[in-house]
Amino acid sequence: MDLDLIRSLVVAQTTKIVLLSADGLGGFPHPDTGRSELETATLPHLDALARRGSCGLIRHVGPGITPGSGPGHLGLFGYDPVRFPVGRGVLEALGIDFDLRPGDVAARGNFCTVDGQGRITDRRAGRISTERSVELVDRLRPIRLPGVEVFVEPVKEHRFVLVLRGPGLSGRLSETDPQVVGQPPRPVHAEAPEAAVTAELVNRFVDEAGRRLADATPANMLLLRGFDQLPVLPRFPEIFGLRAAAIAAYPMYRGLARLVGMDVLKTGATFAEEVATLEAHWDTYDFLFLHYKDTDKAGEDGDFAGKVAALERLDSHLPAITALGPDVLVVTGDHASPAVLRGHSWHPVPVALASQWAFTDAVERFSERACAGGCLGLVPAHHLMPLVMAHALRLTKYGA
Amino acid sequence: MDLDLIRSLVVAQTTKIVLLSADGLGGFPHPDTGRSELETATLPHLDALARRGSCGLIRHVGPGITPGSGPGHLGLFGYDPVRFPVGRGVLEALGIDFDLRPGDVAARGNFCTVDGQGRITDRRAGRISTERSVELVDRLRPIRLPGVEVFVEPVKEHRFVLVLRGPGLSGRLSETDPQVVGQPPRPVHAEAPEAAVTAELVNRFVDEAGRRLADATPANMLLLRGFDQLPVLPRFPEIFGLRAAAIAAYPMYRGLARLVGMDVLKTGATFAEEVATLEAHWDTYDFLFLHYKDTDKAGEDGDFAGKVAALERLDSHLPAITALGPDVLVVTGDHASPAVLRGHSWHPVPVALASQWAFTDAVERFSERACAGGCLGLVPAHHLMPLVMAHALRLTKYGA
Repeated sequence: MDLDLIRSLVVAQTTKIVLLSADGLGGFPHPDTGRSELETATLPHLDALARRGSCGLIRHVGPGITPGSGPGHLGLFGYDPVRFPVGRGVLEALGIDFDLRPGDVAARGNFCTVDGQGRITDRRAGRISTERSVELVDRLRPIRLPGVEVFVEPVKEHRFVLVLRGPGLSGRLSETDPQVVGQPPRPVHAEAPEAAVTAELVNRFVDEAGRRLADATPANMLLLRGFDQLPVLPRFPEIFGLRAAAIAAYPMYRGLARLVGMDVLKTGATFAEEVATLEAHWDTYDFLFLHYKDTDKAGEDGDFAGKVAALERLDSHLPAITALGPDVLVVTGDHASPAVLRGHSWHPVPVALASQWAFTDAVERFSERACAGGCLGLVPAHHLMPLVMAHALRLTKYGA
Repeated sequence: MDLDLIRSLVVAQTTKIVLLSADGLGGFPHPDTGRSELETATLPHLDALARRGSCGLIRHVGPGITPGSGPGHLGLFGYDPVRFPVGRGVLEALGIDFDLRPGDVAARGNFCTVDGQGRITDRRAGRISTERSVELVDRLRPIRLPGVEVFVEPVKEHRFVLVLRGPGLSGRLSETDPQVVGQPPRPVHAEAPEAAVTAELVNRFVDEAGRRLADATPANMLLLRGFDQLPVLPRFPEIFGLRAAAIAAYPMYRGLARLVGMDVLKTGATFAEEVATLEAHWDTYDFLFLHYKDTDKAGEDGDFAGKVAALERLDSHLPAITALGPDVLVVTGDHASPAVLRGHSWHPVPVALASQWAFTDAVERFSERACAGGCLGLVPAHHLMPLVMAHALRLTKYGA
């Protein structure tokens, strides 16, 4: 969808919209039962929502393509994630609530192991503990580069974020990770003329870091990839004419919402606290994005039963949301995370869109297979927001 | 899908993929029974594949558009046939195993009948026999043109192929066929400045051919259309990172596979021999394209019972293919060829994709109507390869 076209059709309205994204919602059948996590869970409220709403399946990036959480959510927010790519360094920085600013260059870092000849022997340094990683990051923080500020922040295990801040930087840089063992890390090179200075700065950082890490085996070197700057995205509140807020316990999702211009509301660590935040701000916003993380965590851990339980917990919170009387309530996810695959997958994700103006279809259960028969069909994720806007009676006619 | 995006996500894997294209697979209900060829045939193995796989319908070019075999197969190979057009002259040359080389200009030729004033009275010269056509082609072979080689090759009945080979040729030429009787054949004109020389050469060929055919009534003239050169297509093995081979008894399909860079395996004239070739080369390739022709032949002949029998023969070979244990097995076709229409049609074509990671849906039969309810939905043909790659676990995540 062309966002300018949508923007040109937006009309003033007082209707309220809730978009609930259950992270990694989609699953896959358990080999013993032939039933997916959604098909195994007891979900009276989600099933009721599916019965009274229009259902379908969401595909976030393209056929067969497994979405990361960044592209997955950008799709749900109405942005075609292929037209609006966001670099991994930026996503990693958003994921730790780093205050990334326009012009900053962020990269995703790994500690790795190199041998006496400088050749990589383990690209993840044996997945050192987060505690150890924090110590090593502290060794790197004092590194100074001319004309720019340097930030090094730990993420988890062997992962960290590098951010350079200063004038005239560019993220058009190659990565240092050769993606295979047996080779030394590669020097960064500029992929555009304007990135030459940044490339030189990064290479100086890597040299100095190598010296500071030399005795820290197995984490005696580092790899950098996914260099990028904050993208300039059309602002969600302006495209859709919505006072929009995000409620998310995890930093990555707050960062993505901030990236598109939503207000980010202070909330607690649990979904119950997120729902309380929703209630508290109900009058102030037209559009509220609510993020539920537990489904993805269990899926990525390969914990089928844990994912079933996470779904059932989510279901138990649904009445509190519907009690607020949103004019449009959409429940879907940013990608599938089947427990049997222990990670994200390409399988399309169920969606239920409930509203006075949603055609009820024959779908009786909120599951992958049931929603495949719904009247929304298989929808690219960035088609969802226009559909939501229409059901909220917030779009006027195209042409006379 | 953007092939560059797919290419950027490909990861190394050892999984094996078989794509079985039953030419003209889709059919249409017989007026006496209300059942299509697929619905009439007894297909225990294809039905079992539909039950254990994900099913859907494939649309090759666009809604309502009847695909030729060329675009139909390019779609299955992952190329949007509208973005990657292949001229009819090129397809005709591939169809007779002509060794068409880059830069050659190929055209599809018809013998036709003209009256004393040179006006066309029959655009197909009464569909003269192939034998007669071969004699007439022999009259044309000696024609010489300055600076280029000339090839004239018979195809079938009134059809032949003209190929010019030499430096600086262009296929941007209008056709000589006015598409109606009562008018004389048109001279070729250049549709781009660089085609001026080629246009002049072709017009000289046509003049000389007219002289040589003058006494050969009813085939006393010829018509040329579909001028084109071999297109430059992104190479299939490089896009998808697959050692890819094609097994096809018919030259057209070998030519199409060669065009995208697949290896073409020597095989016999029967499908049993094709399956034996598949078995013999199983270890050497990651991706094997297998072509079955009989379904299309029967459909084009309007032979409903013959198409049912062709489907049942195909079904009987399926166990030999599944016994090899492909990680992904896809069965579909390049277009529909309903017997009641005696030719290709625009109706979408069933697809069944079987893999450990394919969602089983409610589809119990491999037929047009049953597959319409499958969880793949109605899929553009060029979306199939990314889906196949995903199910073979050969694509990594997009974004973090």
